[in-house]
Amino acid sequence: MKAIILSKFGGPEVMQYGDVEKPSPGADQLLVRVMYTSVNRPDVIQRMGNYPPPPGDSEILGLEVAGVVEATGDNTTRFQPGDRVVALVGGGGYAQYALAREDHSMAIPDSVHFEQAACICETYITAYLNLFLLGELQGRKSVLIHGGGGGVATSAIQLCKALSPDTEVIVTASSGKLDRVRDQGADHVIDYREQDFAEEIRRITGKRGVDVILDHIGAQYLESNMKSLALAGTLMLIGVMGGIRAELNLATMMVKRQRIIGSVLRSRPVHEKAAIIDQFETSVMPLFAAGTIEPMISARFPLRDAAEAHRLMEKGGHFGKIILSNQDA
Amino acid sequence: MKAIILSKFGGPEVMQYGDVEKPSPGADQLLVRVMYTSVNRPDVIQRMGNYPPPPGDSEILGLEVAGVVEATGDNTTRFQPGDRVVALVGGGGYAQYALAREDHSMAIPDSVHFEQAACICETYITAYLNLFLLGELQGRKSVLIHGGGGGVATSAIQLCKALSPDTEVIVTASSGKLDRVRDQGADHVIDYREQDFAEEIRRITGKRGVDVILDHIGAQYLESNMKSLALAGTLMLIGVMGGIRAELNLATMMVKRQRIIGSVLRSRPVHEKAAIIDQFETSVMPLFAAGTIEPMISARFPLRDAAEAHRLMEKGGHFGKIILSNQDA
Repeated sequence: MKAIILSKFGGPEVMQYGDVEKPSPGADQLLVRVMYTSVNRPDVIQRMGNYPPPPGDSEILGLEVAGVVEATGDNTTRFQPGDRVVALVGGGGYAQYALAREDHSMAIPDSVHFEQAACICETYITAYLNLFLLGELQGRKSVLIHGGGGGVATSAIQLCKALSPDTEVIVTASSGKLDRVRDQGADHVIDYREQDFAEEIRRITGKRGVDVILDHIGAQYLESNMKSLALAGTLMLIGVMGGIRAELNLATMMVKRQRIIGSVLRSRPVHEKAAIIDQFETSVMPLFAAGTIEPMISARFPLRDAAEAHRLMEKGGHFGKIILSNQDA
Repeated sequence: MKAIILSKFGGPEVMQYGDVEKPSPGADQLLVRVMYTSVNRPDVIQRMGNYPPPPGDSEILGLEVAGVVEATGDNTTRFQPGDRVVALVGGGGYAQYALAREDHSMAIPDSVHFEQAACICETYITAYLNLFLLGELQGRKSVLIHGGGGGVATSAIQLCKALSPDTEVIVTASSGKLDRVRDQGADHVIDYREQDFAEEIRRITGKRGVDVILDHIGAQYLESNMKSLALAGTLMLIGVMGGIRAELNLATMMVKRQRIIGSVLRSRPVHEKAAIIDQFETSVMPLFAAGTIEPMISARFPLRDAAEAHRLMEKGGHFGKIILSNQDA
């Protein structure tokens, strides 16, 4: 089968479209003929050699696939060949065929196109897990989402509006993206380059602070994030793009009963991911089926041009998902 | 009525036994004739002027009382004059009479003496709240409790053995208290002055780390605590006796999916405290009634000698609770 092969770690040029052996499903797996996969930020980091897949998962890039079941493992019970499925995978998406655990796969609702389905798993499950399952946002007063315009932030805004409509959604973004972030449903947008977000949060919330923060910046934002948290608020830490080590004021954290929760999705034990996906399929998939929320796609590339797709992601400035297609294969 | 009055903030000598007005119960309150109250570490900090009571609570020291209902407010429904009750109070324990919210009061089981009842609220509720309700320890593999010999640590050890008997309980203490901590039920004790606790945890748990840490030290222990936490482990931060500011490695915290939860009991909203006490009465009070767990009392003083009691607490070296009695009043 065709796949994107890394000749070595490095820039987009190391990604080559070539032939690899088609995999066979293990007992708990489905073999999925991949219609679309999406490009996610971790793919870029993995390509550079800094984010190896979990043990046992494919070395091929790609964290989610949408396609058709081609074959099923001996222990599978739910899906049959021909079924339309979307799956979270530990790797292997940038290929014509990918293996997915059956319990990490969901049925694609009839009303949802493969293109959109390919954008569901990585960002929406990340946003749902961290804001709703771990951050317990539902019904709370306010949330701060950093990185408006990014895939996780966009998914997060949509989920907040759909699952917790009374929650005030505040989003930081760069100046060029403020309007589009507002269009996605943000109640307030903060230009993180021009404004001190902790001051803005203080102003917007009348000194109260926000109940949950979804942060992928880490060290650089830690102090301002903790200042921006309300009493009993939770900082969900899902990335460290702005550094690793920072000083924390433990007395404030204790007195204000605040929490910091570190979270990743990919390296969680498979049974935990299965439980998360199960809850997601129940609570969120109906929203896609009904058209209440819809992934936004900003660019499509044939799989063979994955390097171009990475160049676009690294240049930034896109708004919405970048997807890769096997339609021409 | 008699009470301990602070002439000003300072050393034990500022505590004077004198006359104050007997309070009247508000609509949601009980007036309790105090048989015993206990001395807790926060009393010492409050006496020094660094821990004011929540707004609306008595300025008199004392966070818990055991006694007899003397009068009831208009909105109370459960207790009658003459009932034996134990209550968590925001202040006011060091007196002949104290006000307690009815929903912060529990019935004292017939088999439990007032002396012991006076030792239940502050330390056992703190341990239960942080280890079981917030730390979700039940059924997990291991816990690290700092400050063995202290009231919260002793309560925590007993609760772990009673509510989660398969959990390995590891406790740090000073060399003079190691044997007594082991007698309380600790599976492993670490001499915090002589041993590097993070190294000991690594050895004892076979590099796995512990699932929950109950810590009142803060900054001084932060790095070693985070090193000692297992994957998906939780650091419960309930004190900062060892400093306020410390550096945190956010990347490790994220990848290991660890949590830090800041927690205090006294300043929580009254309805939250009521809910905690309700769960405590259901889950833990039967253990006292059955004699499964029992507060350990190390010293008794008449209320008039509260200054002596504080001197003993500040000297350290005691093991178990120090209580104050109104029996001679």
